Amino acid sequence: MSFIHDDFLLASAAARRLYHEFAREEPVIDYHNHLPPRDIAQDRQFRNLHEIWLEGDHYKWRAMRCNGVPERLITGDASPRDKFLAWAATVPHTLRNPLYHWTHLELKRYFGIDELLNEKTAPAIWEQTEAMLARPEMSARGILRSQKVRALCTTDDPADGLPWHEKCAADGFETGVYPTFRPDKAYAITDPVSWNAWCERLGSQSNVDVNSFDKLIEALDRRHEAFHAVGGRLSDHGLNRAFASPQGEDAARRVFDRYRGGGRAAAGAEELEVLATHVMLHVGRMNARRGWTMQLHLGPIRNNNARLAREIGADVGCDSIGDYPQAEALSAFLNALDTESALPKTVLYNVNPADNYVFGTMAGNFADGTTPGKVQFGSGWWFLDQKEGMEWQINALSNLGLLSRFIGMLTDSRSFMSFPRHEYFRRTLCNLLGADLEAGLLPADFELAGGMVRNICYANAKAYLGLAKS
Amino acid sequence: MSFIHDDFLLASAAARRLYHEFAREEPVIDYHNHLPPRDIAQDRQFRNLHEIWLEGDHYKWRAMRCNGVPERLITGDASPRDKFLAWAATVPHTLRNPLYHWTHLELKRYFGIDELLNEKTAPAIWEQTEAMLARPEMSARGILRSQKVRALCTTDDPADGLPWHEKCAADGFETGVYPTFRPDKAYAITDPVSWNAWCERLGSQSNVDVNSFDKLIEALDRRHEAFHAVGGRLSDHGLNRAFASPQGEDAARRVFDRYRGGGRAAAGAEELEVLATHVMLHVGRMNARRGWTMQLHLGPIRNNNARLAREIGADVGCDSIGDYPQAEALSAFLNALDTESALPKTVLYNVNPADNYVFGTMAGNFADGTTPGKVQFGSGWWFLDQKEGMEWQINALSNLGLLSRFIGMLTDSRSFMSFPRHEYFRRTLCNLLGADLEAGLLPADFELAGGMVRNICYANAKAYLGLAKS
Amino acid sequence: MSFIHDDFLLASAAARRLYHEFAREEPVIDYHNHLPPRDIAQDRQFRNLHEIWLEGDHYKWRAMRCNGVPERLITGDASPRDKFLAWAATVPHTLRNPLYHWTHLELKRYFGIDELLNEKTAPAIWEQTEAMLARPEMSARGILRSQKVRALCTTDDPADGLPWHEKCAADGFETGVYPTFRPDKAYAITDPVSWNAWCERLGSQSNVDVNSFDKLIEALDRRHEAFHAVGGRLSDHGLNRAFASPQGEDAARRVFDRYRGGGRAAAGAEELEVLATHVMLHVGRMNARRGWTMQLHLGPIRNNNARLAREIGADVGCDSIGDYPQAEALSAFLNALDTESALPKTVLYNVNPADNYVFGTMAGNFADGTTPGKVQFGSGWWFLDQKEGMEWQINALSNLGLLSRFIGMLTDSRSFMSFPRHEYFRRTLCNLLGADLEAGLLPADFELAGGMVRNICYANAKAYLGLAKS
Repeated sequence: MSFIHDDFLLASAAARRLYHEFAREEPVIDYHNHLPPRDIAQDRQFRNLHEIWLEGDHYKWRAMRCNGVPERLITGDASPRDKFLAWAATVPHTLRNPLYHWTHLELKRYFGIDELLNEKTAPAIWEQTEAMLARPEMSARGILRSQKVRALCTTDDPADGLPWHEKCAADGFETGVYPTFRPDKAYAITDPVSWNAWCERLGSQSNVDVNSFDKLIEALDRRHEAFHAVGGRLSDHGLNRAFASPQGEDAARRVFDRYRGGGRAAAGAEELEVLATHVMLHVGRMNARRGWTMQLHLGPIRNNNARLAREIGADVGCDSIGDYPQAEALSAFLNALDTESALPKTVLYNVNPADNYVFGTMAGNFADGTTPGKVQFGSGWWFLDQKEGMEWQINALSNLGLLSRFIGMLTDSRSFMSFPRHEYFRRTLCNLLGADLEAGLLPADFELAGGMVRNICYANAKAYLGLAKS
Repeated sequence: MSFIHDDFLLASAAARRLYHEFAREEPVIDYHNHLPPRDIAQDRQFRNLHEIWLEGDHYKWRAMRCNGVPERLITGDASPRDKFLAWAATVPHTLRNPLYHWTHLELKRYFGIDELLNEKTAPAIWEQTEAMLARPEMSARGILRSQKVRALCTTDDPADGLPWHEKCAADGFETGVYPTFRPDKAYAITDPVSWNAWCERLGSQSNVDVNSFDKLIEALDRRHEAFHAVGGRLSDHGLNRAFASPQGEDAARRVFDRYRGGGRAAAGAEELEVLATHVMLHVGRMNARRGWTMQLHLGPIRNNNARLAREIGADVGCDSIGDYPQAEALSAFLNALDTESALPKTVLYNVNPADNYVFGTMAGNFADGTTPGKVQFGSGWWFLDQKEGMEWQINALSNLGLLSRFIGMLTDSRSFMSFPRHEYFRRTLCNLLGADLEAGLLPADFELAGGMVRNICYANAKAYLGLAKS
Repeated sequence: MSFIHDDFLLASAAARRLYHEFAREEPVIDYHNHLPPRDIAQDRQFRNLHEIWLEGDHYKWRAMRCNGVPERLITGDASPRDKFLAWAATVPHTLRNPLYHWTHLELKRYFGIDELLNEKTAPAIWEQTEAMLARPEMSARGILRSQKVRALCTTDDPADGLPWHEKCAADGFETGVYPTFRPDKAYAITDPVSWNAWCERLGSQSNVDVNSFDKLIEALDRRHEAFHAVGGRLSDHGLNRAFASPQGEDAARRVFDRYRGGGRAAAGAEELEVLATHVMLHVGRMNARRGWTMQLHLGPIRNNNARLAREIGADVGCDSIGDYPQAEALSAFLNALDTESALPKTVLYNVNPADNYVFGTMAGNFADGTTPGKVQFGSGWWFLDQKEGMEWQINALSNLGLLSRFIGMLTDSRSFMSFPRHEYFRRTLCNLLGADLEAGLLPADFELAGGMVRNICYANAKAYLGLAKS
């Protein structure tokens, strides 16, 4: 039997029934990823496994480095084929890492390959996949069709235009391709030079002269409106911790004035907190006003390795999990919005599993009798996007809130090869529920448990997010 | 087979044998709850499921809000029956939440109901239970008898009198009904108006003019003595973190003087810490002197939602788990008492499961060759009072200390319907030990493992707490 | 069947096959322990179970205290036999604690005893083991031979000489007996009197007048060289948190000057941080220069019980798990070395399991394409050195890094009876992998999984550490 078979990850008969009857055929809403919208607009055709698989995947780079592979074969000037061979030689060393499962699940689902990838099988797999990738159904859009992606949301800077999203909308592509509003740079005054340049770009894009805090907010709001016009319904925020300065908006105005145009010394943590708090409150209000969903991704410690950051840049696989206190600031931020009836639908993602229970309970504090599951405890994210991490999140959410209202999985990926992660999640979910059914922890009623499965796979996200195509 | 059957939660033959032979028939000592002693003294008869089940249960309120139920049907002016129907419609959405298990376990044990509660079954269940609740054996005392509760400890303010406990003692009720000394308000100077009023009440109740720190302690000690006289043997303390100011008692005297009677600005964190540290040290000494047990409940972040706090009040289901550092302050506080040979028997409860191992090891530092299990790592509390939470606590305690000396479960509940949580805990415990037995992780000796089970269910708490009736 | 049988801990057929075919026969490299090198050099013969088992084992002392045993029978003046009997009476109360497994595994492997230890069996076991311990094959060296220990690394102060290690090397003992460089005292200025005396001892030992920070480093480097000469290849560091002061080396020079010879007030946390940071950076550089491995043991809160510290001393079983923030300082420290290409091979050990994912991801940030698995997430340590703790560490490492590159287990023990902990770890590892194999989570290829097992047991540590005999 091949490693990836029909019942992969499904340990019980009940799990198999739940997956095959209730989960397998559901469409996909990939409401958070980092795919390049240009590739979709231009319906990119990939030349080989390096392009579609290795080019931008810092998970794989990191594993290769840990395996002792020199940087030349990872991000350096080696040929695409040699880089692929170095990756293939690393794969057997990733046993028990999610990369091992993902690798073989993706080879199976995209290319029908059953062989295990390693040094020996690599050359033949390189050739076989090269030929298959040339087929029209393996283009960016072909993949989205075959993976049943009804809608997807990329991650976008408010200072950028949205030509590719507009093109996708205009040319009648049946999958919804929507931008996500990610304004992290709006308060990045720890690097004032880049921040000022960003303010200029935002100004051009929005036709607002960004010369005060109030103008910054006005410009962001115009962009928020423009994102809305092409179907965007989510914002996204990457933070170590929630911002919750007790200082008022005037303090934020003063901080803005201090760094905009003027001296270029990096801001300290307190000034950043003041400015960021008030930008985030305004974005929260925009989200609430337009019926959007706000995603908070909390907790990593990024770019730990200064040497590699200097040599190859940011976001190259040198991030890790932080251990910041989260509860008080997150509570204060959500409460500030809720108090003025401006708390939007919100998804809280933690990267440190030690925070699962903090986040799972925090989500329950701000329900208000409107949207079911209004504040969501989000799916296992980044380092937690694997079997153990997903199980912990599903169990925490179950015990602390309403799993039945969960909007489920997203890929968070930079690669068109990653859509089977929805399948991986669904199998994991069904495996947990199937075990519960067989142990008598759930009533022996497949419609009850299966209905919940179906909702988590698709219907909950559809109803909650309100994307036009979905 | 009904959902709640004889072997519910018991996955192995060994687990079933342990539960049915060693756990099931043991009596209950519910040494920490929030039941109203008045209801017991007056032997209250409940009119319907709303009264006995929903009236004060903020777990259920929280789940209903998360399910999108409007506040009117939760704590508002809707009729009891409509509130119950709204709850019933929420129940199927609580699959995998402990509420789902508790709900059906309670319906089964109190009313013999096997049906699953949902929108359809709700009206009939409302009527059926209404009739049954009118029977004499369903009164407060009737329930305590049928649940085999030998003793229970309510949670009480030192500034209050104890008329209901006295009545229970006087009228010969066979269950011990004891007060627990909870002096949290004695240092609540973040709200000086309420605190001063409380000091007045304490003064009246104790016949001590509470006009200095030393008089405060004297008044508390008189009340401690009064609690002792009606059988109280535990104190209880709800804290974010342990208090362990390095400042001496004179500093506490000065803080007391600053807030008693004088200006009414809220105290800052440091002043609170100073006063609270010395109040807590004195209460610790009182506990040691009178052979009591001190319970520390550590870690929540309460009343996160200011809107609901304003609209309906405190403790309405908007609390969550905090992520405060716990180890250093807790160590310093326990050590300060131990150093002067005034550390009482102590139970440490954490609300954040990420702290399980910190608490499990902290408990082992202050044994002194007197009471076995002198410092206890307490049972899964609040959000941890569910299968996964209990299993983590039992496993942590097992690995880090002596499970065999564990004093076991309590309900911590406001409802007379909650006693089956003891059964739930016992099944969970037996299920864990049964799995170990079948895996050969415990010797194949049912008397050894079963004796431990029996002790954890009842005998350990009886010996450790020393309650008169138990 | 006896409690400790051939398939102890091995729940599946695949687990049994992995253990018996791939793990059981592998030799041992015990690269971190606290054995007295003198005992090995002199080939100590132990008189009874108290000497070899209880004399220095604060795990057992702690359990006895928790069981209510008076200190006289633990560390006091009771007879060795009475202390053993008190321990034996405690053993049945340690059910589910690792002590219960270790106790019976050690009795079985060293003495062939199948009986469970308790009050009744204790006298006969005392006599039987006393006789067996007198045999030559039960000497310190005899035990190392029969346990297949190829190399071991003790823990040593740079201010001490290495006569016993030299003797072992000189007399041709076939097991490598190597010192580990543990310079914790080099910055222990919170006790300036002891620190100054230690500087004197270091000066004598190194023939360097330790009168400045630079001379301190010079003296440490000479000792590092001397450790290297007798085969030492590891340093070890016991820390609450990593030291990462942003202040430069001149600040460390000033702190040194302030405490060396001068006033004797204890240093504050900031001064300690400055001095310790720069000592640690220098030791890191020495390690990198000589190809060593640096071990960081992070997170405990030690000697919590002042009463027992006063009465019997430090390290007597009153330590617990701390909850310090770890990520930022650890990242900064490793990055500082990496930036100057002076990061040695490094093993990160956490004592708080809530930090598993932080550590598991931190290790992946500083790979550099040289040594595979260059920064290791170390084996379950101290309170985590038990089944659940090991499983968590193995799973975290698997999910976040490369389990295949893991250098595996060490005893960290003070007792010659502890070598079966390698077996315990191997069984636990094989049990996990066997379950994965049977669930189809690993490909059905025993050579693939078994090869990884074999490497983790022995070959990885041999290649990674580069000990001369191993």
